[in-house]
Amino acid sequence: MLIAKIGGNIIDDAVRLQSFLQSFAALPLPKLLVHGGGKVATALGTRMGIEAKMVEGRRITDAETLNLVTMVYGGLVNKQIVAKLQALGCNALGLSGADANVIKASKRPAGTIDYGFAGDLQAPQSINTGALAHLLEAGISPVFAPLTHDGQGQLLNTNADTIAATLAAAFASSHAVKLVYLFEKPGVLQDATDDSSVIHSINRERYTGLKSSGAIHAGMVPKLDNAFDALASGVEQVLICQAEEIDKIGTPAYGGTILSSN
Amino acid sequence: MLIAKIGGNIIDDAVRLQSFLQSFAALPLPKLLVHGGGKVATALGTRMGIEAKMVEGRRITDAETLNLVTMVYGGLVNKQIVAKLQALGCNALGLSGADANVIKASKRPAGTIDYGFAGDLQAPQSINTGALAHLLEAGISPVFAPLTHDGQGQLLNTNADTIAATLAAAFASSHAVKLVYLFEKPGVLQDATDDSSVIHSINRERYTGLKSSGAIHAGMVPKLDNAFDALASGVEQVLICQAEEIDKIGTPAYGGTILSSN
Repeated sequence: MLIAKIGGNIIDDAVRLQSFLQSFAALPLPKLLVHGGGKVATALGTRMGIEAKMVEGRRITDAETLNLVTMVYGGLVNKQIVAKLQALGCNALGLSGADANVIKASKRPAGTIDYGFAGDLQAPQSINTGALAHLLEAGISPVFAPLTHDGQGQLLNTNADTIAATLAAAFASSHAVKLVYLFEKPGVLQDATDDSSVIHSINRERYTGLKSSGAIHAGMVPKLDNAFDALASGVEQVLICQAEEIDKIGTPAYGGTILSSN
Repeated sequence: MLIAKIGGNIIDDAVRLQSFLQSFAALPLPKLLVHGGGKVATALGTRMGIEAKMVEGRRITDAETLNLVTMVYGGLVNKQIVAKLQALGCNALGLSGADANVIKASKRPAGTIDYGFAGDLQAPQSINTGALAHLLEAGISPVFAPLTHDGQGQLLNTNADTIAATLAAAFASSHAVKLVYLFEKPGVLQDATDDSSVIHSINRERYTGLKSSGAIHAGMVPKLDNAFDALASGVEQVLICQAEEIDKIGTPAYGGTILSSN
């Protein structure tokens, strides 16, 4: 099973997105896609007079922002990706966590920071693997918008990296899962300003070192924390690479980062 | 099988919507819901500087308007309804026509009026009854946003009344289908200004007479045209009533309109 996550920079670039979707459509089943979409939402929010409020790379979700991301992530971005995948022969089905109750989250408790309508997940209990297995058996490729619900009627904005990692961890007991984070950079970089400094293999010990030396920048930290947690839950392989590398996974040509548990 | 369509005036009224969804959640399976959402889209469009262009009650869908309705119908309205139904114990799953390729439309050819990205349907071939049957067998209640696709990657804005009627016609060969149009009025009215003038039973002959005398106003014409076409395709019963009547269908207390084929 492949669980792929694509970031906002890929979604914002029509040519790169189309190229990625072509590769994704050609991959064997079962496969699941999780997408973000931050920049589209920010741009539209500006047009509507809603200001993006970010703390440590995470959006603060007030009621108005929740409506904005529900529209943009759950509507515009999700349905456009699904329609494009269908045209490429991939039987995609767009989902928020509320749909068929596939992902149930709990609203993040307000601490020092009140994140508002932000959802937190726990593997495996947040994931309705039975409902997803039923879709996968029908040859459907689920496409997740970064939205969940609390089961009480409340939608919750939920980090797409976390959704991908939690899905991977929940399916790890029944499937050999590859979790792939695809973004605009060639992988985890030793020097964030130098694209040729890809760390091809990283374990938790090296990660801890790079984090404390400040070499790994803020945006990568939650992604890598999620990724190492997924690995600890039994996910077979976690990869972080450029969107264009999707075709090369499992081949010697792969030039991105591979996380290892040892 | 029940196929219910709710109009924009119900969606815009939080109390009426919640009350309707409670009743809908309590109905036996299989059931499908189709929603519009015109006023929310118009209000948001105004805020974004997109003007609604309507001809004969139908929206002209330019590229910007398509994005707007994809966000509002496919995202905001659809996901909010799904989350509320899940909270009420109804296993709802939101769909556009692109999702699992459930409804494929053709872009309306530009004639005297160019409707833009508007989708036209044909029963039964536009409806993927196999994919929908798979969801229904799993106990899922599909919730349709009024969006379809052309199979070539293009989303299309599609009239919700037409989607409901086409779904009903497509399932008529395999199921005893009730098609119910729920809106803010108590039924088809003899006098549009008098809510007590409900026509309790109407056949095509009487409808033709009322249409030519001008008693039936413009907004009702496509709804009734669709409804009579569905009846002609073998749909067991078509009803037009107030959202609150959903509980009374099939009982002597039902006070809305029943369409009859004779």
